[in-house]
Formats: sequence, structure tokens, C-alpha cells
Amino acid sequence: MGEQKQMKLAAYLIGTGMHVASWRHHSAQPNASIDVTYYQRLAQLAEKGRFDLAFIADSLAINHDSHPNILNRFDPLILITAMAGATSHIGLGATASTSYSEPYQLARQVASVDMISKGRIGWNVVTTGDATGETGQNFSRDVHFTHSERYQRAEEFIDVVQGLWDSWEDDAFTYDKEKGLFYDPEKVHKLHYQGDFFKVKGPLNIARSKQGQPVIIQAGSSEDGQRLAARTAEVVFAHKDNLQKAKEFYKELKDQLPAFGRKQDDLQILHAIAPIIGDTEEEAIAKHQELQDLVPTDVGLRFLSGYMGNIDFQAYSYDTPASEIDFPKVNGIQSQFDEMKKIIDTEGLTVGELYARLTNSARIDEFVGTAQQVADAMERWLEEEAADGFMLQVPLLPSGLEDFVEKVVPILQKKGLVRTEYNGTTLRDHLGLVKPENRFTRVLK
Amino acid sequence: MGEQKQMKLAAYLIGTGMHVASWRHHSAQPNASIDVTYYQRLAQLAEKGRFDLAFIADSLAINHDSHPNILNRFDPLILITAMAGATSHIGLGATASTSYSEPYQLARQVASVDMISKGRIGWNVVTTGDATGETGQNFSRDVHFTHSERYQRAEEFIDVVQGLWDSWEDDAFTYDKEKGLFYDPEKVHKLHYQGDFFKVKGPLNIARSKQGQPVIIQAGSSEDGQRLAARTAEVVFAHKDNLQKAKEFYKELKDQLPAFGRKQDDLQILHAIAPIIGDTEEEAIAKHQELQDLVPTDVGLRFLSGYMGNIDFQAYSYDTPASEIDFPKVNGIQSQFDEMKKIIDTEGLTVGELYARLTNSARIDEFVGTAQQVADAMERWLEEEAADGFMLQVPLLPSGLEDFVEKVVPILQKKGLVRTEYNGTTLRDHLGLVKPENRFTRVLK
Repeated sequence: MGEQKQMKLAAYLIGTGMHVASWRHHSAQPNASIDVTYYQRLAQLAEKGRFDLAFIADSLAINHDSHPNILNRFDPLILITAMAGATSHIGLGATASTSYSEPYQLARQVASVDMISKGRIGWNVVTTGDATGETGQNFSRDVHFTHSERYQRAEEFIDVVQGLWDSWEDDAFTYDKEKGLFYDPEKVHKLHYQGDFFKVKGPLNIARSKQGQPVIIQAGSSEDGQRLAARTAEVVFAHKDNLQKAKEFYKELKDQLPAFGRKQDDLQILHAIAPIIGDTEEEAIAKHQELQDLVPTDVGLRFLSGYMGNIDFQAYSYDTPASEIDFPKVNGIQSQFDEMKKIIDTEGLTVGELYARLTNSARIDEFVGTAQQVADAMERWLEEEAADGFMLQVPLLPSGLEDFVEKVVPILQKKGLVRTEYNGTTLRDHLGLVKPENRFTRVLK
Repeated sequence: MGEQKQMKLAAYLIGTGMHVASWRHHSAQPNASIDVTYYQRLAQLAEKGRFDLAFIADSLAINHDSHPNILNRFDPLILITAMAGATSHIGLGATASTSYSEPYQLARQVASVDMISKGRIGWNVVTTGDATGETGQNFSRDVHFTHSERYQRAEEFIDVVQGLWDSWEDDAFTYDKEKGLFYDPEKVHKLHYQGDFFKVKGPLNIARSKQGQPVIIQAGSSEDGQRLAARTAEVVFAHKDNLQKAKEFYKELKDQLPAFGRKQDDLQILHAIAPIIGDTEEEAIAKHQELQDLVPTDVGLRFLSGYMGNIDFQAYSYDTPASEIDFPKVNGIQSQFDEMKKIIDTEGLTVGELYARLTNSARIDEFVGTAQQVADAMERWLEEEAADGFMLQVPLLPSGLEDFVEKVVPILQKKGLVRTEYNGTTLRDHLGLVKPENRFTRVLK
């Protein structure tokens, strides 16, 4: 077997937690999403648990049906800058869109935080999913980009950003006061990028950080998304319903790496889980039920209407058997409907149960239980090659993360699956990713 | 006379200082421009001096002739976020361009730092001057915007940003756990902005900070720039050669306020000065000469070539009388040429002296001298209505700012011209600007 493989851990931080009703919990601080010290404490907690990174998601539009924790929140890059100042080792990942940003600007901001944090930053590349259907309208566009446009643009965008990040060779700045030479002009490089979407000359006005380049994170699971990930991503967040599906996705994605000249360990797959820890399994399940019971009915019905496109669920009650509803065929999200119909038919769900199922952020039962049960499940997923690690979408913060760090992490550390001390200082160090050589230095060899 | 008027103070922070050769000084830390703790210490120093704000400039392209301190530096918004974490009272101003940003994105990032800093942020609105002639090419444009396009776009941009900043009324978030009401839907507002450059729906996904809205800063002195400032700016940085010109500019700009329904104190004019403090006047002058002597000749000649457009100064030496050079007429920067020719003819400068004059960041002699002399000059400018305060473009950092805070500020405090303690906590508090009412709340009254 050789050296035991350790699991990667990421903490998805979002106000009072991933659960839509978490803010109503008696322990929740409802203004958490705009409290910077709250986020700093969570990052410190994850650092105490020796996590690889803390992670901030994003969206570029909100409406009445948005998750309460995203209605009023910080820009992710600004937030992780503040979190960097309160931590020393943990990596920090921020989401930023390739559809609504300029690559020069984004390259620069991400590089700036990477420099400030001494090489602890990851950029979560999103093409923006447009849950509200209104994102384009916040950016002077009548409509959002098509799926394929988004991914073509994203591919160019990443090429530009990574190219700009190599503008300065690591020893470009000579600072020779005597001779008056601030830098060596041979060691700064223009990019001269020309693509279908972008033309960017360069050079960027900031040098590389300690880790060379920020880490590229992605979550796309569509065909386009997987292709982009196989080509460029170093961390992928996966979302599957169960171990079997996770294993299939893991293999499918890793199998695409060689075509891009990449090795298995060049891309780490972190599976999303929503752990809830109890002293007993029953207590853990009860904790989850407590959150489900806090969801206001109208929120649930509106969520279903939004999720299902053109069905008005507000005409039904939670008790209506979902099988009584006539689901029309709708273009574009047919796979969503098909999956849902299958669940409804197989399990005979009511509307309320359907909602609970769809919003159940702890939908993988293995990760709701005692600390030992959850640690064992995580070990199993790692061993079975369903994941290289986990992104924790904790339903209720901060208590759910405290439980995990205090109760599950020590078990995982005893198993040798989680580090007891950080061995390095950069996010690449933590993830076992090599510092990328500067492309221009390479060329000159 | 009534209550004595106090002066506003801003510290322009830029690596080793404004002087192009400051990095070569024996006391300079040449990598200062990418050292976040260095900037944090400078902000703390300015806070100790009870400054209103610390300020970060910007550019979106670099070339061989760029000031060494801007070749490798942080994005201003990222940097002030890190500075906010190391200070508690001082305001923080960051430059961001209306020509190469999206208003939704910028509104959000500035609002995020404003929230994090508890209301201490100012946005320096620039349309981007394009010193390198290559800025557009970093943003997929063949050419930069024209001057008039830039200002039309800027006007719309500011309207959108300020409109988005009012998306949420101050009491919109009810956090009623019992009833399950996170916010009051009547108190969130879409902007529905439709202009020639932007269409932005809103709402923004972040609420107003303690100071209501970030402060709008500008520096434009062209006709378009002044008009935009008179309409929207709350702080203006002025750059004039002497007291008389400063007084004229001050009056000219303030006189334009009533047309926009604004009062004299709604816009504070801070004049740029480059103080150098010595124990004697001779010592201060010698300090400045020491920096001038550190400028490499080729840097000076290249600077002149760049500044003068199409004259190759590298064909001349520093000793050549500038009057021997044939200055062609060039479109666009004719006023620059005319001013320069006048100086050359009147004062009989050599090429070297011409360069020293143009780059002399301490070009107003009154602000080079003993602490008492500089304090007296500042008092005079305030009394004569040449400025409401000063932006300190210190030639050599950190020592020049230390001198000012330790030696000049106490004199100004004794004169009653600078506060001894902060009275408020927000940038608006410091500047005496009222917290703007939310436009949507106003409408409903």
C-alpha cells in the first residue's frame, strides 16, 4: 500500500450554514453573512482542524427565493482578504465568474490576495449558473450567456489569467540600488493573448507569490464542465447522491486527465458532504429534523416552483401526494424532472417530503451520525476512490463545524487520515500540488 | 469668525514614496509595494497623526517607463481591505476605474470593504488616464476610450453604483426567527437603471454600511472632470503649482456646486503637496536634492521622451539647454507643451533641469522646510481658501511621513487645525459629511 493517503478537507462557509432555515435556529446569528469577525473565527476554527482550505461561494444576482445567507453578503475576494489577516496557514478559496469579470482585473485581484496571504489562495472558477434568471440584467446584458458560450469563454479566461500570472519571473526584481536597476527587463513578459473572447497584452502589474500561481478550483459536472476541469482544475468539488455515483464521477473525471498530459494527483476531487454530528445517531437525525421543521411552508413551496420551472406549487399543500401533480415536459432541465419523477414514483413522496428531499443538504445519510460513524464513512469514501477529500457544507454554523473539528477530526487524525500539523505554508503545499514553473522561464531553458 | 475650521489630511501611500528614485535611497525598502505589513504600518502611522484617510492610487497597465513603485503592486481594493484590518478609525480610499470595471461588481466590492471597515471607505473614481497608451489592450480593446466617452460613462457608472448602494433600506433585515421573516420585502429595491452605457436591474446583494454610502473621491481637473466632480464628488484631490492657482481652482470648482443643488461643505478640496521636513530649511532642501541625484540619467531622458510624446530625448544629454530642442506641435497634449515651453524660455533650463522640474514631486517650495514652516504654509493655504486640506504625496516613505506625523502634526494640533482625537468612527464623520439618506426611503416619506 505504501504511504497512507490523507484526505483533503475544505470548509464551505456561508453565514449561518447551508440549510435554508439555519438562520432561524436558536443558536444562529442571523446577520452572520455580513459579520467579518464571524468568518474570521470560522476560518480559525477550520485552521485548528488542519483543513486545507476555507471556501466562499458566490452568486451575482438575488431574488425573493434566494437563500437568506446570500441576500446580504461580502464579495468573496474582499472577504478572503480579511480572513487571510486572521489566519496563518489555512488555504482560502474564493469564487469569481468568468462570465462577468475581466481577466486582467481578476488575475490581479486574486494574485494580490495570494501575495498578501503568502500563497494560500485558490480561485473557484465559475461560469455563473444564473439561478434567478436575472444575472445578465445586472451586467448590461438582456440575457445570460448560453452554456456553451460560457464554457468557451471560461477556457480562454483561464488561459489569459494563468498567462498573466507568469508575467514576472521569480528573480525579475533585482532592486540594485547601486546601479539603479529596479528589475531585469529580460524577465518581464508580455502575454499578447489573442482569442475569440479576449485580447490581452500584459504584463500584469504584480509578481508571482510564494506558491507560484493560485490554485484553480472548479465544480462543473456537465460535459463542458468536466472537460474544462480535466484541462485546468487542480481541485474539483463534486456533488453526488451516494458512494456509487461519486465513484463513477471520480473515475470519469480522473480518466480524462491523461489526454491533457496531467497526472492523477494533479487534480484533487473533494466531495460535498453535509455532516451532522450527534452523541448518538438518533441525536444527529433529530438535529437535522429540527432544521427541516424550521422551513416556512411558503419558502418550501416557492422553492419548488422555482426549481420545477413552470409549476405553481403554491396551489398545493405540503400534504398533497406529489404523484397527483402533472409535471409538464420542459426544455432544458428535462434531466431534473426525470430524476425527480423517479424519486416521487419510487418513494411515494408528498409535496412536503419532496421539498425536504430536494433541500436536504444532508442528503447522504452516512454523514449524519456519531463522530465515529461519520469518520468511518469518510474513510470508506476515500478508500473506495469516491473522493480525495471532502468539502463540508455544514447545515448549521458555527456549531456544526465546531462539532466536526472537535469530535471528527481527532478520530481522522488517529486514523492517520488528517494531518496533525501543517507541513507547509501554502495551499499548494497542503494539497500536494507542485509550484508551477513560470512558462516563460521554461521557454528560455 | 465662529468655530475654527480644521484641515483634512490624506496620506497618499505608494511603496517607497512618490519620488521616482525613492527606492534607491539608503533607507528605502525596495519591495515595499508588495509588503502588506509595510502598508498596514503606514496606515497606522497616519492614524496616529489623526489623518482623515490613507489613499491608494492605481493604473491598469505598466511599461518600462512606469514608476518603479507601480510595476509590482496590490490591487487597491484588496490592499485597503488588509489595511482596514490593521486600523480602527482612519478612512481608506481606493482607486477603481469606471472605464474598465462593471458597476455591479465595483459597487459590491467597495460596499464589502465599507461594511468590513465599519464605514471607513472612499472610492476614488477615475476614468483611467492611460499613461502607457496600452491600457485598452489589457482589456480586449484596441484603443482606450476617448476623453468624452470616458466621462459620459463615468457619470452613468457613478449613478448606477450609488443607486445599487441604496438597494436595502437600513431597517430591511428583520431577522424575525419566530415568524420566519428574514427581511421585509417592501424594503429592498430594484434599480432598473437604463442608460446609454449600462442597464442594471439590481438589487445589490449587500446592504448599506454604518456611513450609508462610501465617500466619492475624484481628481479630474479638466472641464469634464470638474463637472463630474461638482455633481458627484465629496473629496477632490487638486494639483496646482502655487497658492494662486490653487485658490482659482478652489473657487472655480466650489462655484459649480450650487448648480447641482450642493453646498460648499459637500465637497472637500484636498490639495496635493509633497512635504519634506528638515531641522533647518537647508536640510530639507538637501534631502530633496539627495533624491534628485539618485535618478538614473536614462530614466530621466526616457521619462521626458514619454512625457513629451514624439521627441527622443535620449539623443540629448542632461546638460543640453532645453531651448535648443525643437518642440513640434502635437494634438491632444498641446497645453502640456505650451506650459513647458514657457518654463523653458522664462528660466533657461537645461534638459536635466527640465526633468527635475517635471518630476519634482516637491514642486511647491513652501512645503519643503522646517516643521514650523510647513505647518505655517498649510495654515496659510487653508485660510486663503486654496484648499480644505491636503493630500500628502510624500517623496520618501516611510521616513517622510514619520517626520510629518511626529513634527508637523503636533504644531497643527496646537494651532487647532488638526484634531487630537477622532470624534467619530466613519470616514464621513471625519470629513464632516452627512450620512446620505437612502433614496428609496426618501421617496416613501
